[in-house]
Amino acid sequence: MSGKSLLPLIEYEMAGEEVRAVYDDIMATRNTDWINNFWKVLAHDPALLKRTWDSIKQVMAPGALDPLTKELVYIAVSASNGCEYCTYSHTASARAKGMTDAQLMELLAVVGMANETNRLVNGLKPPVDVQFEPHE
Amino acid sequence: MSGKSLLPLIEYEMAGEEVRAVYDDIMATRNTDWINNFWKVLAHDPALLKRTWDSIKQVMAPGALDPLTKELVYIAVSASNGCEYCTYSHTASARAKGMTDAQLMELLAVVGMANETNRLVNGLKPPVDVQFEPHE
Amino acid sequence: MSGKSLLPLIEYEMAGEEVRAVYDDIMATRNTDWINNFWKVLAHDPALLKRTWDSIKQVMAPGALDPLTKELVYIAVSASNGCEYCTYSHTASARAKGMTDAQLMELLAVVGMANETNRLVNGLKPPVDVQFEPHE
Amino acid sequence: MSGKSLLPLIEYEMAGEEVRAVYDDIMATRNTDWINNFWKVLAHDPALLKRTWDSIKQVMAPGALDPLTKELVYIAVSASNGCEYCTYSHTASARAKGMTDAQLMELLAVVGMANETNRLVNGLKPPVDVQFEPHE
Amino acid sequence: MSGKSLLPLIEYEMAGEEVRAVYDDIMATRNTDWINNFWKVLAHDPALLKRTWDSIKQVMAPGALDPLTKELVYIAVSASNGCEYCTYSHTASARAKGMTDAQLMELLAVVGMANETNRLVNGLKPPVDVQFEPHE
Amino acid sequence: MSGKSLLPLIEYEMAGEEVRAVYDDIMATRNTDWINNFWKVLAHDPALLKRTWDSIKQVMAPGALDPLTKELVYIAVSASNGCEYCTYSHTASARAKGMTDAQLMELLAVVGMANETNRLVNGLKPPVDVQFEPHE
Repeated sequence: MSGKSLLPLIEYEMAGEEVRAVYDDIMATRNTDWINNFWKVLAHDPALLKRTWDSIKQVMAPGALDPLTKELVYIAVSASNGCEYCTYSHTASARAKGMTDAQLMELLAVVGMANETNRLVNGLKPPVDVQFEPHE
Repeated sequence: MSGKSLLPLIEYEMAGEEVRAVYDDIMATRNTDWINNFWKVLAHDPALLKRTWDSIKQVMAPGALDPLTKELVYIAVSASNGCEYCTYSHTASARAKGMTDAQLMELLAVVGMANETNRLVNGLKPPVDVQFEPHE
Repeated sequence: MSGKSLLPLIEYEMAGEEVRAVYDDIMATRNTDWINNFWKVLAHDPALLKRTWDSIKQVMAPGALDPLTKELVYIAVSASNGCEYCTYSHTASARAKGMTDAQLMELLAVVGMANETNRLVNGLKPPVDVQFEPHE
Repeated sequence: MSGKSLLPLIEYEMAGEEVRAVYDDIMATRNTDWINNFWKVLAHDPALLKRTWDSIKQVMAPGALDPLTKELVYIAVSASNGCEYCTYSHTASARAKGMTDAQLMELLAVVGMANETNRLVNGLKPPVDVQFEPHE
Repeated sequence: MSGKSLLPLIEYEMAGEEVRAVYDDIMATRNTDWINNFWKVLAHDPALLKRTWDSIKQVMAPGALDPLTKELVYIAVSASNGCEYCTYSHTASARAKGMTDAQLMELLAVVGMANETNRLVNGLKPPVDVQFEPHE
Repeated sequence: MSGKSLLPLIEYEMAGEEVRAVYDDIMATRNTDWINNFWKVLAHDPALLKRTWDSIKQVMAPGALDPLTKELVYIAVSASNGCEYCTYSHTASARAKGMTDAQLMELLAVVGMANETNRLVNGLKPPVDVQFEPHE
């Protein structure tokens, strides 16, 4: 039962034109011939599918940060939130972009420390130092 | 009231030897002459203070990931958890290590997307694709 | 292993009087002849079982909000927290109260956006506008 | 200090053309003459500003769910995550769309119960009942 | 603005009979002559007020766990969730029940570690050992 | 797939000297002859393994709080965060230290209430009472 999709996956063959257009763009952008299940379930709402894909494509593209750094951040958030699918899929993406085992382990060490110190702070409530105040 | 420390801050002058040794190492490592409030409240438990500082120093040092990337990950986790002090302090640290406004904005765009798609996944439960399974 | 209950499920036949009274009320209220596993594991603490059921019955009843809206809110929280059992069970309840696939998809689109903008806000800390301040 | 924006707010007068176009659309869509601080800080990244506004406009519009229900869901997620700005701003939006005090209280009663039972489930791990499994 | 109540506080003098009955029971049970603000805002929904107080009174009473242990657990959850009011109020309650500074610091050390290792686990997904499986 | 480790488990036989030293200390401290999977996956980063074990050993030892209380807090945090492995493993540890079924149920009742009232507070924002302010 665990992991059974709430709605059936929409395969390319069953998909309408709007959905196929997004699937085609995903495969072209990623230079692959398959679509992962996340998109196949989002396809029940073609507008949501399109908006999410367009945003991901824009957000994860090279910019002020490089694509691997962005994947590392994605893993950090997914591990903090406990999203299993997201952890597996973005770890795979990060590896495809060159992440090594040593980088994964160091990333998780930082994620662990951040989650720890976040709670030490929440429980002790030190006031924000003036040196940390943003300048305006 | 908001932001009032649960326990009084322990200033250098009031601190015992164990705590002063950590404070000294913080200032030497960071090449500054002040201690931020997080450490001053942790100092109520010198063992916790020392262990936390030793871990942070080790985890945030250059390694398989560079120190700026690590600060970005720290901000990502702190913003996901809603830890205010942590967000201000690690944004300041990241700026000190060269983070630009454009990098901060792009970082938060990724953090936002990750938090969004984590919940689309949690609500729809697509099964993990075999292509994402770790090899053993 | 995954999904193995921490404590054995307490079936009707094995249950004491207090627990049976709650089970009977659940089946009568819901007009069904079965009890779902959540209650069967809570039954190890009959007071907790009774209090939780009484609260759920009161909270989920029609009032200022209709029962379907309440189920949608339940799914929204469960998806945000990543509670798998809760997502499956409340999605089933919402469907039984008339939720369509289109409503589920739109609900999750809102949940996704809310989780995204919550983190943009946490990372950028815009001050609360005076226009949003509650009147007293 | 608390609530000090990480980056200065970008007022209409200082804004570039891209940002002004979004600000104009926000005011026209909402039929108001002011912009709330969330958008003024997102404006440091005009692409993020535009994408977020376009998504919010699309997601919060009437559809399979009505706009008030969507605002209630937004409050539910924001209260679950503890996002203060989001709670104040979406409570104000929900009130503008007709939310009564009684509805707010009932909403939070559901949010509270959902957060409670999510953790009873996480701590006791009842297996998902076959009756809750999605049909395919 | 921060900390401004979403709904006005309902003082004893303004309260209806149902609310006064709960306020009276709170003061009698706690042997005090004041009501804290949490209850004064819940009072907008007398049924929610009564149910929450009855549950708290039952759950926090001595039983298989002593009242101080229960307050420590309350702080642990509140610090993990980042609930500021809850952290201040339950720290005050715990102190009233005898919590020392050393106990608070040790508690938060455990809370910190648990939040850290939770994320190391979420990011690395070790399978559950058979030795940890519940017996049935 | 669910539960498949992101990195292979490192068994004693395959482990290097640094890792074996930690494994030996875990078995000696716990008076057992096996290592649970959490450590076997952390072993990919010997420094992280050693630091985490040293911290856990120090934090979970008897001090101002007894070891069983600390395990209860660990379960409380793990159930709040929804960490499955952590819930199973620390429930097993707590049982080994004497936790009864009645204590587990009462613990989860407190955890549930805390998660509920945390969100009532987050949604209603009562100001912190002066009586709860820490003295300095």
